Amino acid sequence: MDKFLIANQFEHLQDHICKKVQEIDGVAFFKEDKWQREEGGGGRTRIIEEGGVIEKGGVNFSAVHGPVSDLMKKQLGLDGKEFFASGVSIVLHPFNPNVPIIHMNVRYFEMDTGVFWFGGGIDLTPHYVIPENAALFHAGLKKVCDRFKADAYESYKNWADDYFFIPHRDETRGVGGIFFDHLDGQSGKSKDEILNFCIELGQLFPEVYQQQVELGKVKSYGEEELQWRNIRRGRYVEFNLVHDKGTKFGLLTGGRTESILMSLPKEANWFYNYEPKADTAEALTLSMLKKGVDWLGLNN
Amino acid sequence: MDKFLIANQFEHLQDHICKKVQEIDGVAFFKEDKWQREEGGGGRTRIIEEGGVIEKGGVNFSAVHGPVSDLMKKQLGLDGKEFFASGVSIVLHPFNPNVPIIHMNVRYFEMDTGVFWFGGGIDLTPHYVIPENAALFHAGLKKVCDRFKADAYESYKNWADDYFFIPHRDETRGVGGIFFDHLDGQSGKSKDEILNFCIELGQLFPEVYQQQVELGKVKSYGEEELQWRNIRRGRYVEFNLVHDKGTKFGLLTGGRTESILMSLPKEANWFYNYEPKADTAEALTLSMLKKGVDWLGLNN
Repeated sequence: MDKFLIANQFEHLQDHICKKVQEIDGVAFFKEDKWQREEGGGGRTRIIEEGGVIEKGGVNFSAVHGPVSDLMKKQLGLDGKEFFASGVSIVLHPFNPNVPIIHMNVRYFEMDTGVFWFGGGIDLTPHYVIPENAALFHAGLKKVCDRFKADAYESYKNWADDYFFIPHRDETRGVGGIFFDHLDGQSGKSKDEILNFCIELGQLFPEVYQQQVELGKVKSYGEEELQWRNIRRGRYVEFNLVHDKGTKFGLLTGGRTESILMSLPKEANWFYNYEPKADTAEALTLSMLKKGVDWLGLNN
Repeated sequence: MDKFLIANQFEHLQDHICKKVQEIDGVAFFKEDKWQREEGGGGRTRIIEEGGVIEKGGVNFSAVHGPVSDLMKKQLGLDGKEFFASGVSIVLHPFNPNVPIIHMNVRYFEMDTGVFWFGGGIDLTPHYVIPENAALFHAGLKKVCDRFKADAYESYKNWADDYFFIPHRDETRGVGGIFFDHLDGQSGKSKDEILNFCIELGQLFPEVYQQQVELGKVKSYGEEELQWRNIRRGRYVEFNLVHDKGTKFGLLTGGRTESILMSLPKEANWFYNYEPKADTAEALTLSMLKKGVDWLGLNN
């Protein structure tokens, strides 16, 4: 499978997801910014704002290539002169605090040495954690993982627990999901099979998000829930700016800042030393933001 | 000068600044959280919230010591087994968009090998840049710098331009100020002289901030100015979480998260690709967020 065909499939995936997300939102439409990268390649940033469900979100496609810089060598440990990278990245921030934030990314990397790999993940960040809803989300992911490889769900779920973690808060970002990186020929799967897994994940994305939106959007909320939403969004900002490798790498290597930082919410709050009162929905949520939660009860 | 006496002077400086900031604010009082560090030492975090001028701010003192971890060795290039560090850190976020955000830090570091150094800085981040007000601020800094050393202002002003810079935005954080680090015996000044410079800077802090508050707080504002304030605050968050060495080092080495992140504003906004209209106060502000602005007209 040629790299340009892979990028082309990612482009189609972006189209598909945007169409579905617009249907889920019901009000707003994506606006597109096409951009070019000086050293080679470019992308299509698509932003949705002030919708029926989504306050701010982006579904980005990019396919970039060019010489490997010293920083890339150092950060990625790359061996080679020219790289090619393509992917789809999504973050959606809903307005209703009862609807979770969601993130997805699938990406392909190739070097002129012939080395290639895929990476990606989907994770869910509910402002209010509801175990049944988290289980529904994980069940969707497991189904696609199981079709790919017997141990994929367990292994990628643990990887997500470790990756989407905020050490300085000792909290996971949300209820996790799956994360994988450096999937190559040594994974026991062919390039086509791995690409197919990425595309299936991308196609799953609007399905699992629609479920979460439908469960959450019927619930009412007040000022208190909006404030809690904004505090959780603050944590999302902290994760993305302090820990997320993709964000840091993008900003350091001169990626398009506005495309990368579309992941930040319209509005976030920080209160000094905020602690929810005992036995509230907020305290319950905090108690569940831990690694290793067995949402599907697989080990019971 | 013994390290405990230095910490003691910093503690007194915190007391002095808190007293003065309360007078400037006129409404709110600081609340104190004393904390202990497991490996040795601790601090006094003082937070002011919902005041007459300040929406959220902190004036922190800490004096910590203990074994040098591998991370400290790597990040600070430290040679030695035990360290001692003490300092005062301030960030104030005013409510009125016409009053600037301000930051100050003075710090002392000592190793069991006998090596020591001071570091510090003050910088101003107006939501709306007004050159005359920036000049007033810089004139205050220059006066204290001139008493310390002939070339101190110019050199530390340039250092601040480089340090308080957001590469991924190609913007300075604000109108700069001064920044210095690793000031030791080789600076041509004695330990007592450097400490005295740090204390004088600390005493200058409430004076220069009072000037800025008085110039700004009489100006009215509306929804548009509040939104712009929140966008500028978003940039402040980006600088602190992506670039600020002190914040990153603190979070990575297990510092007290709530004391470190008191620097984040109560409320911040991110809009995709926001650009102010031409010939507005907002556009004028952006045009002045550059390195190397000669606020005092010294080179004319």
